Amino acid sequence: MPSRLIDRAVDQIAGLPGVGRRTALRLALHLLGRNEEDVRRFTEAIQDMREGVKACNVCGNLGEEDTCTICQDVRRDPARIAVVEDLRDLLAIEGTGHFKGRYHVLGGVISPMDGVGPADLRVDGLLVRAQSETCEEIIFALPTTMEGDTTAFYLDKRLRDTGVKITTLARGVAVGDELQYADELTLIRSLQQRLPYSSSGGSSAES
Amino acid sequence: MPSRLIDRAVDQIAGLPGVGRRTALRLALHLLGRNEEDVRRFTEAIQDMREGVKACNVCGNLGEEDTCTICQDVRRDPARIAVVEDLRDLLAIEGTGHFKGRYHVLGGVISPMDGVGPADLRVDGLLVRAQSETCEEIIFALPTTMEGDTTAFYLDKRLRDTGVKITTLARGVAVGDELQYADELTLIRSLQQRLPYSSSGGSSAES
Repeated sequence: MPSRLIDRAVDQIAGLPGVGRRTALRLALHLLGRNEEDVRRFTEAIQDMREGVKACNVCGNLGEEDTCTICQDVRRDPARIAVVEDLRDLLAIEGTGHFKGRYHVLGGVISPMDGVGPADLRVDGLLVRAQSETCEEIIFALPTTMEGDTTAFYLDKRLRDTGVKITTLARGVAVGDELQYADELTLIRSLQQRLPYSSSGGSSAES
Repeated sequence: MPSRLIDRAVDQIAGLPGVGRRTALRLALHLLGRNEEDVRRFTEAIQDMREGVKACNVCGNLGEEDTCTICQDVRRDPARIAVVEDLRDLLAIEGTGHFKGRYHVLGGVISPMDGVGPADLRVDGLLVRAQSETCEEIIFALPTTMEGDTTAFYLDKRLRDTGVKITTLARGVAVGDELQYADELTLIRSLQQRLPYSSSGGSSAES
């Protein structure tokens, strides 16, 4: 590399997940092609985010205050807590506008391959919340992967003694999917857990 | 988004070429998961690069001084100048160790689709260098794409009056391939078998 400064930047960019050295060099050259003010806005936005954003001390959701806006919102039902892997899944559920409970953001799922164990996740806080009087139901809204299943299995074991009701998102054929392309496990599950037919619409849930 | 700081960072990251909002959010969450010192190293490396790296005032190659290390190197043959699109292609040729001349980095190729015209490229400097007494040969080491061919065609027209010998890399490189992805042997061959440039057909052999 013609400059140790480029080298350093490429090293740093290549340290991002899913970004190889070739892509990192392409991005570095792109940034070199922008004006300085523009690049400063870029780095400042990242720096400001890192310094200003913190995890909610109740649920682990991200925000700028000690307690996140959802946990502060008295209109959100404290009896129902959806356990999610990270902010992206929380945002996906919020995007539906069909969940009025609260969240618990684990900050990952158990994955021995990636060196992530239960101690790396926000589990103790979940136990405390499950034991509180207001909590009635914990909903596992975890990925339908082996890691997600392992995490659900582990959390269920830990939560069982609290007596709280534990549910999980329905597994089945996704809306809009062709049966022939659904994987076998999904089909088997959706057969075993088949529901009474309601012509008013399979997609809408009763409240 | 639960925080305008995350929003701003995601916007900035999604402004990078080839990075969508979904990937940007994934990268932002990754950066939020790192410790502050680490993120500071990341942003500082980019900031330092943008502030410390400049284009060589002779050839446009990047470096930390006004004139790049290659242009300063008296062992590099000033009679032969390879015209490349950007630093990545220069690095690819340097990587072969088979070119002892100098470079001229255009900073892009003519691409009406992307709004890049001749005025956006380092063309005038190339004309000045071609007219200098030391220069004997200009080698088009441009991508074998329509944009690369268009650029070669344009440069040939501008350079013809200088009387300098104009050659182009042998097309051992498959049409449609980017230089930086060519394997080393192909690059070495295309350097050794460079041909007189003929604007009647950049891709075809001599008639």
